[in-house]
Amino acid sequence: MAQEKAPPSPSQDLTLEWVRDALVRQEDSIVFALIERARFPCNAPAYNPSLFPQLGGRSLVEVFVRGAEGLQAKCGRYQNPEEVPFFPDDLPAPLITAYNFPQVLHPISASVAVSDAIWYMYFNDLLPLITVEGEDGNYASTAASDLICLQALSRRIHFGKFVAEVKYRDAPLDYTTAIHAKDRDALMKLLTFEAVEEMVKRRVKKKAMVFGQNVTLEDKDSDAASQYKVDPSVVARLYEDWVIPFTKVVEVDYLLRRLD
Amino acid sequence: MAQEKAPPSPSQDLTLEWVRDALVRQEDSIVFALIERARFPCNAPAYNPSLFPQLGGRSLVEVFVRGAEGLQAKCGRYQNPEEVPFFPDDLPAPLITAYNFPQVLHPISASVAVSDAIWYMYFNDLLPLITVEGEDGNYASTAASDLICLQALSRRIHFGKFVAEVKYRDAPLDYTTAIHAKDRDALMKLLTFEAVEEMVKRRVKKKAMVFGQNVTLEDKDSDAASQYKVDPSVVARLYEDWVIPFTKVVEVDYLLRRLD
Repeated sequence: MAQEKAPPSPSQDLTLEWVRDALVRQEDSIVFALIERARFPCNAPAYNPSLFPQLGGRSLVEVFVRGAEGLQAKCGRYQNPEEVPFFPDDLPAPLITAYNFPQVLHPISASVAVSDAIWYMYFNDLLPLITVEGEDGNYASTAASDLICLQALSRRIHFGKFVAEVKYRDAPLDYTTAIHAKDRDALMKLLTFEAVEEMVKRRVKKKAMVFGQNVTLEDKDSDAASQYKVDPSVVARLYEDWVIPFTKVVEVDYLLRRLD
Repeated sequence: MAQEKAPPSPSQDLTLEWVRDALVRQEDSIVFALIERARFPCNAPAYNPSLFPQLGGRSLVEVFVRGAEGLQAKCGRYQNPEEVPFFPDDLPAPLITAYNFPQVLHPISASVAVSDAIWYMYFNDLLPLITVEGEDGNYASTAASDLICLQALSRRIHFGKFVAEVKYRDAPLDYTTAIHAKDRDALMKLLTFEAVEEMVKRRVKKKAMVFGQNVTLEDKDSDAASQYKVDPSVVARLYEDWVIPFTKVVEVDYLLRRLD
C-alpha cells in the first residue's frame, strides 16, 4: 500500500547518508551563525515594535527579515524545498526561471512548518543566552545576523521532512499503521533514538568549543581556551530543548500527512 | 601642527589594542563566511549579467547585493563608519533615528574606499579558489553567502582607516612629513611590518584549519583532518595577495588626506 504512494519524483539521492551528512554540516552553519550574532550585544531596540513609529508597528528585525525574505524570494530561494520562509504570505514571485530541484518529498511537505515556534524560541529563549546586555547601534548588522541564525535553524529543523521521508521509505510498514491511526505518540517513538540524540548534543557542544575558541599561534593556556565566544553548553541546550524536539514535530506532522 | 588637526570627536576607545582585537576577531568572520560560501558550488548563472533578461542587464548577485544594501541602509547600517557599501550611489535614507556612533576618524574617511577592487577580486580571483565547479540552483543562498563574504572583507579592509588613524596618533611627526610630501612610498614603508604580516598569514591559515575541519567525537585520523572545507593555503593567500595590500592602500589613501 505504501509503495503505491511514492513521491512524485523519487530521487536516488535521498539516502540516510545524504540526510545525515547534511544535518552534520548544518551544525557547523548554526554554530558559526550564533558566534557571529554574539559579536553584538543584545541591541534590544531592534526588537521593540513601538520604538520606531516609522516602521508601522513592526520591530526593526521584523521589517528587516520581511524585506530580506522578499528579496531572496525574488532570487528564487524558496523554490528549493529545503528553504522555508518566516513570512510566507507576502512573498513576491521569483524574477528568475525556476531551477529544477529534485522533488523527493510528498507534496504536502509545503504545508508543514514550525516557523512561528522557531521565531519565538530564537528571540525569547536563545538570544538572551548568547548575547550580553547593552547596545552598540549596529541594529542592521544585528538583524542581518539574526536572519542568518533564523535561516540556519529553520533549514535544520525543517530538514525533519527529509529525515521523516527517508525513515518512512526505509520501513514503510512500520509507519503505516501509526499514520492511519493518527498516533503521534507511536510515531514519536518510532522516530526517537536517544543514543543518537545524545551524540548530536555532545558533537554540537564540541563544535562550539572548537569554532568558538580564540585561535592563536601559541599553544594556549587553559584560561584562553575556556573563553568561548558562545557558551558550548548553551549550544547543547539549544539542540536538546528546541532543535531536536522541533525537528521531531516536523517529522511527525509530515508523516501524519504522508499518505494523504 | 598635527595635534591641532585632531578628529572632531576623539574617542578614548581608539587604541592600538582595540584595533588589533577587532582585526583578529574579523579574521574569524572572514573564515566562517568563506566556509559557508564553499557549501555551494560556483553556481555560475548567478554571475552572468545576460542570463536573466528580467534583471535588466545585471547579474543576479548584483541585483541581490544592491537590494540587500538598500534594505540594510534603511535599517541604518551605513551610519556606522566601519561599514562601507559596494553601491553607495543608490542607497535610501535610514528609516530610523541615527545612533550616535563615536566619530574617531577624520571626516575625509567617508571618501576613502576600495570597494570596486574588493568586488573584482572576490568574484574573479577568490571565488574560483574556494568553490567547486557546477551548479545546484541555490542562487539566492549563494548570493546571500557572497554578500556575507564581501561585507566581511570590506569591513576588514576598510578598517585600515582605523589602523592608520591609531598609527598616526601614535607618531604624528613621523607621518606628517610624508603626508605633506604626498609620498606614498614613504607612507607604505612606515605602515609595513613584515613580521606582523607573516604572523597574520600564519594565523588565518591556522583558523582555516581549525574552523574548516570536520569535527567528530572520535579522535580523528590524519585523513579526516586533512579535508578542510576551504583550503587553508588559499586563506593565507587571500591575506597575502589582497587583504593586506588593499588594507595598506586604504591606510595610505586615508593618511594622504588626514591633514586636509
